[in-house]
Amino acid sequence: MLPAIEAELRSAVARCVGPGLEELHSMLAYHMGWEGVAAGPSAAGKRIRPLLVLLAAACVSQEWTPALPAAAAVELIHNFSLIHDDIEDNSPLRRGRPTVWKKWGIPQAINTGDAMFTLAHLAILRLAETTTPAIGLQCANLLQSTCLHLTQGQYLDIAYESRGDLHLDAYWPMVSGKTAALISACTGLGAVAGGAVESQVAEFREFGRALGLAFQAQDDILGLWGDAALTGKSAESDLLSGKKTLPILYGLKQAGPFAHRWMQGSIQASEVPDLTRQLEIEGARDFAQDAADRLTNQALAALQRANPQGPAGEALHELARQLLNRQG
Amino acid sequence: MLPAIEAELRSAVARCVGPGLEELHSMLAYHMGWEGVAAGPSAAGKRIRPLLVLLAAACVSQEWTPALPAAAAVELIHNFSLIHDDIEDNSPLRRGRPTVWKKWGIPQAINTGDAMFTLAHLAILRLAETTTPAIGLQCANLLQSTCLHLTQGQYLDIAYESRGDLHLDAYWPMVSGKTAALISACTGLGAVAGGAVESQVAEFREFGRALGLAFQAQDDILGLWGDAALTGKSAESDLLSGKKTLPILYGLKQAGPFAHRWMQGSIQASEVPDLTRQLEIEGARDFAQDAADRLTNQALAALQRANPQGPAGEALHELARQLLNRQG
Repeated sequence: MLPAIEAELRSAVARCVGPGLEELHSMLAYHMGWEGVAAGPSAAGKRIRPLLVLLAAACVSQEWTPALPAAAAVELIHNFSLIHDDIEDNSPLRRGRPTVWKKWGIPQAINTGDAMFTLAHLAILRLAETTTPAIGLQCANLLQSTCLHLTQGQYLDIAYESRGDLHLDAYWPMVSGKTAALISACTGLGAVAGGAVESQVAEFREFGRALGLAFQAQDDILGLWGDAALTGKSAESDLLSGKKTLPILYGLKQAGPFAHRWMQGSIQASEVPDLTRQLEIEGARDFAQDAADRLTNQALAALQRANPQGPAGEALHELARQLLNRQG
Repeated sequence: MLPAIEAELRSAVARCVGPGLEELHSMLAYHMGWEGVAAGPSAAGKRIRPLLVLLAAACVSQEWTPALPAAAAVELIHNFSLIHDDIEDNSPLRRGRPTVWKKWGIPQAINTGDAMFTLAHLAILRLAETTTPAIGLQCANLLQSTCLHLTQGQYLDIAYESRGDLHLDAYWPMVSGKTAALISACTGLGAVAGGAVESQVAEFREFGRALGLAFQAQDDILGLWGDAALTGKSAESDLLSGKKTLPILYGLKQAGPFAHRWMQGSIQASEVPDLTRQLEIEGARDFAQDAADRLTNQALAALQRANPQGPAGEALHELARQLLNRQG
């Protein structure tokens, strides 16, 4: 499926060519991992979202090629949001390479993100040709509602940065928009494109939603107890970036030594090992792991109810397992 | 039509509400001119684009209410592009009020623009309910192609800022994306939503395209010879902002005294009256006025061929005339 995804993505991005527009296409192709220094699979990312679309479609109808426009659309949405997030978070690097705004400046990076966003919308509309007009419209609506949810999650993420009084409950609305909405759209779009009935679509969407939340909780754990984070030598620990992740919000709620230190201002790299241990002592790691496990079970139960067929069903199980058991 | 447009816009923006999202909605409503200091018609803008949609629809079918989702969509697209343009151009003011990025910071402003963009896409999809699925899909495709054209024009605009060797020919691709594409989409969407046949849609689109280009050429003339620009006391003259407008590019091509002074660096407010006169002596004003007149004639000829019916046809003529004869 991966070569087909890549071909569909390239053809979607190729809409943005024309005399004098070579550099605009280059910025898009650079971000997609196709051009520039260190181009290749590691710069492109794993294309997990389009794989989820195609596997969900294959579970329902055995014929996944009509779902390719939806697969391209979600990957383009994901990459649009990364281009804008990198500006909003002031991130200089993405997948080990300079970010678009770092290379071309903020004005061009905002506009390149807008172009990528538009290419995604054009891609999803092609679904009306590969499937039916009704399915095309339904999927376009589903994708647009998801994008609204994404911007709402991103709004909360930015707003939370400057808030010291954040409650643990504030976590779920934020990550359900930022992460889970798009994963849920992937499995939902695949099911709709494959011709699933409404109740089955709902189970696929629930699978994606719980998978996305479990993935994020796991990611938050790795942000503190993953190999790179634990050394304290790199900027990898979420303690240094000040992100409001699940274990950190749990630690703040305990109002113990960890919360006391956090409230006093920026944490130094030398403090990371001790403070990470303290957070674990206060129960934050177990709490986050319990949440991740519970959500993983919810995801797998929903997948079971979605009743995926054939080898695609097994592949979807396997992809979910890989996503949730990764180390560092 | 204006109250109906405003109601449709408010209902489109109301999709972005929810617990904890009050401020996101406020940023959208502030930019639309509904909330905050100095809210009201002058903060909202003239809603010319949605009027063009509805008048075009009314010319074709006498029944314009089914086109309302398209009218809302183009106005939301216009406003999304203003939010992002204001960041890209570093503009502190928009319609006399602080811009969204100036009030809430760049990260929230980028994301609010993305939310506005998404609301536009959701709005256009509602056309499948008020007209037919086929018309809805056709209009969604037309709007998305337009957005791609917009981002291409914006790419050129940003890229041109740092280029000293710009040729006069570079002007038209830039403004055809930045201005004419959306105006052409307005008249085209109205015609499609009204059920026009393909050849009539093409004339409506051509009318909008030429109207948009004529409007931009006229706007460029006002940017140098309008009342506010001529005083040289405000920052209104395009000579001070360094924008590459049609008369300025024409002046650069003459390689006379104007071009000589331009090449030496930023122009001071005290130089504006003399330099504006010099540009006029070199023929830049006549050149731009000829272009505006030629495009105006093209626009009116296309409108004639589009054969608009009834009072809406007269209103469309009148709106075009107002747009092109405004002073300062």
